[in-house]
Amino acid sequence: MLARVRASFDRQGMMTTLGVEVTAVEPGRVEMSLRHDDRFTQQHGFLHAGAVASVLDTACGYAAYSVMPPDASVLTVTYTINLLAPAAGQRFTMTGQVVRAGRTLIVCRGEAFADGADRPFAAMQATMTVLHNGPGLSG
Amino acid sequence: MLARVRASFDRQGMMTTLGVEVTAVEPGRVEMSLRHDDRFTQQHGFLHAGAVASVLDTACGYAAYSVMPPDASVLTVTYTINLLAPAAGQRFTMTGQVVRAGRTLIVCRGEAFADGADRPFAAMQATMTVLHNGPGLSG
Amino acid sequence: MLARVRASFDRQGMMTTLGVEVTAVEPGRVEMSLRHDDRFTQQHGFLHAGAVASVLDTACGYAAYSVMPPDASVLTVTYTINLLAPAAGQRFTMTGQVVRAGRTLIVCRGEAFADGADRPFAAMQATMTVLHNGPGLSG
Amino acid sequence: MLARVRASFDRQGMMTTLGVEVTAVEPGRVEMSLRHDDRFTQQHGFLHAGAVASVLDTACGYAAYSVMPPDASVLTVTYTINLLAPAAGQRFTMTGQVVRAGRTLIVCRGEAFADGADRPFAAMQATMTVLHNGPGLSG
Repeated sequence: MLARVRASFDRQGMMTTLGVEVTAVEPGRVEMSLRHDDRFTQQHGFLHAGAVASVLDTACGYAAYSVMPPDASVLTVTYTINLLAPAAGQRFTMTGQVVRAGRTLIVCRGEAFADGADRPFAAMQATMTVLHNGPGLSG
Repeated sequence: MLARVRASFDRQGMMTTLGVEVTAVEPGRVEMSLRHDDRFTQQHGFLHAGAVASVLDTACGYAAYSVMPPDASVLTVTYTINLLAPAAGQRFTMTGQVVRAGRTLIVCRGEAFADGADRPFAAMQATMTVLHNGPGLSG
Repeated sequence: MLARVRASFDRQGMMTTLGVEVTAVEPGRVEMSLRHDDRFTQQHGFLHAGAVASVLDTACGYAAYSVMPPDASVLTVTYTINLLAPAAGQRFTMTGQVVRAGRTLIVCRGEAFADGADRPFAAMQATMTVLHNGPGLSG
Repeated sequence: MLARVRASFDRQGMMTTLGVEVTAVEPGRVEMSLRHDDRFTQQHGFLHAGAVASVLDTACGYAAYSVMPPDASVLTVTYTINLLAPAAGQRFTMTGQVVRAGRTLIVCRGEAFADGADRPFAAMQATMTVLHNGPGLSG
């Protein structure tokens, strides 16, 4: 499972560009981290909500993927993100966790933390779908 | 108003990095565009949902900003995005539009289109807040 | 199609209890209306957001249902509702409209209006799923 | 605080009509329960998502209210609900919990459980706003 997550993750140009690392994978839960980067800021110099959302969405996606059958792939249907405070810090940790997995839809929650704080600065509720793969589609 | 939107936009490292252009600004409505870029893809080679969400969020934010008093700044409280189809194409147009503006909260809708299609491949509902600025905060 | 929508609608105890009427059905769009009722208020005497959400969700559900094959049924996966102003008025009109219909997922938008106002007091973005029926399940 | 929550709750016609009880209130967390009722069903005979959402929204609202200053009142700005499974059962327990409280916005999560199950059948992420009261507004 870990190998599948990493193989799929490595194909995501966006995650490479943002400098995201997968720091933990267990069934139903994934943790990622990234550093502040001036290329991905909003107008006040904090990490852009879009970067935060990208990583939370990916963490939720792989949390869902980690409980899917080996031949399936994952797609985000929709998510809601609350931005509770600016993404102010040097190092950000983002978690994705399965709330409940159905046969075709999996709901996850994500949380983003700055510099080891225990209160999240962003919270996500995401709906993922399971695709049973045709040829050429994986991860 | 246009000048304020552009000045704030130009301070967003993320928008520069993604190569986003502001193509139209009118009171309550903003349009942006960007090109496909392999640096910002998901695992199947399409534009990453995080890039799509970043631009839609920004378009909604500036739509809200365009109806605010000159001394105010805008912050995203929360948004919901539906990813209706993969972001497959060469050129993407993203719109943000005010649904209703209150004194401190403004609700907007965003839509993303690929290569001139008339059906959106992503739809957003976003809640923005108006900040009456302290020193040093603008846009 | 109209007959299918009405037959399903009539089986919803909740809609009968709230006194909701279907006022228009066309492919991809449904309109419903209800009156203020003191049984369904929040603590300040306005119609409860839960009642507003119930009717908007139902309007979106039938908008989706109206573009499905005859043997399918509809289920709400998730929705986001923004409450833009109190539900103050005597008569409320709620619309549901398909944004884009996929094979298994349909995204709709809903809007709620009070007493003929042209600005909505609530806005919904909803994700519906298509169920291909087993025996005993319809509507 | 408990007295304030109960006083406000008792003014909600909708909660009385649905037969909802407040079963626990602590700072930042509220639990409510209700029984299945044929008046509030959807077309397949399960409790309507609108009834589920009403109670989850209220539980989240009072969770937020429980951490506000005594002179403030609470209003729902927006929420997202995922319906993970039908609301099938006799007795439903719904919880609301504060994720993070800011000065004017409070984000909460809600979960709904049927008949003592440990997996939720619905999950909510809600954004509440704090109103500093003018005369005549409370709760």
